Amino acid sequence: MDHERTGSYGYRKDELGKRLSRIEGQVRGIGRMVEDEKYCVEILTQIAAVRAAVDRVALGVMEDHMKGCMAEAASSDDAASHLGELMDVLERFVALRR
Amino acid sequence: MDHERTGSYGYRKDELGKRLSRIEGQVRGIGRMVEDEKYCVEILTQIAAVRAAVDRVALGVMEDHMKGCMAEAASSDDAASHLGELMDVLERFVALRR
Amino acid sequence: MDHERTGSYGYRKDELGKRLSRIEGQVRGIGRMVEDEKYCVEILTQIAAVRAAVDRVALGVMEDHMKGCMAEAASSDDAASHLGELMDVLERFVALRR
Amino acid sequence: MDHERTGSYGYRKDELGKRLSRIEGQVRGIGRMVEDEKYCVEILTQIAAVRAAVDRVALGVMEDHMKGCMAEAASSDDAASHLGELMDVLERFVALRR
Repeated sequence: MDHERTGSYGYRKDELGKRLSRIEGQVRGIGRMVEDEKYCVEILTQIAAVRAAVDRVALGVMEDHMKGCMAEAASSDDAASHLGELMDVLERFVALRR
Repeated sequence: MDHERTGSYGYRKDELGKRLSRIEGQVRGIGRMVEDEKYCVEILTQIAAVRAAVDRVALGVMEDHMKGCMAEAASSDDAASHLGELMDVLERFVALRR
Repeated sequence: MDHERTGSYGYRKDELGKRLSRIEGQVRGIGRMVEDEKYCVEILTQIAAVRAAVDRVALGVMEDHMKGCMAEAASSDDAASHLGELMDVLERFVALRR
Repeated sequence: MDHERTGSYGYRKDELGKRLSRIEGQVRGIGRMVEDEKYCVEILTQIAAVRAAVDRVALGVMEDHMKGCMAEAASSDDAASHLGELMDVLERFVALRR
């Protein structure tokens, strides 16, 4: 892993940070619901909402990555290794490998 | 929604609470990575890990729910409404509806 | 596996058969698109449609299974093994295991 | 949609065609299992296998698409529209939209 690489999402770091804080808060809220022994289906509905929020963040970062890092690498010798990396990540999200 | 219903996961409330705290910490960690503008692919790998952890919690609660609430309701008049509720949740996770 | 168990979806065997034939036709159609070297994004859109159709069939069979087989087993000694089986299947669809 | 665009998977059209035929056969097999009223869990296991096979085909086509069409477009005016298209498709597979 090249440690000098930075994130292509830098231009919207604040927005992304806020979305992650919100997800953190949602997870904390589920913890409180569990503490209060709320009904299972209410818990599951909240978990589904967290999962959807997490997926949205992931898709946004993927888009930034393709627009930034990958586009830059497109005509370089790194193109193939960048694509390999991205496919690894996609497999996790499309869910063939965990 | 019947407000007197409680969670079938009560017997392992502490364990579930700990897992949720861990997920909360993972999300916070991703927030710090974003703050530091870490490489996109590292961010995506961590998001994939959160998503897998969230799914594991959900599957556990589903199992408790079927073993507890649904088994209890199985021979009652509530059986159909319980099944309807669970199918709604399953659709969200298998991802036909969001 | 108990070979005498039959499907709880029997009452709508024909409908289910028709939906599967339609999916088969969709897959065949994608094969023809590949043969004609259609644009990747068109192929991917059709694959997404097949995947959604497959998930819908799965959710329907899950519902029948819970309404039928599992409800019957709910108060029997088989309840636990039925639940184990179903959780195995759910894990595949929620995608923690493949 | 530009009708002159062709698929970047062309170089492995035969392999892809074979995989799609195999999926078609799997779906037909599930149809026969339904006809014979096989046990729900066996049906669901086969459906999960089809879904995994479908996802594998999709990931392969995505990879070819990024390596081919998108790499070509990377430095052209079409780069943004290509990315938009791909993100639409990814959303369907990561499952925020159907």
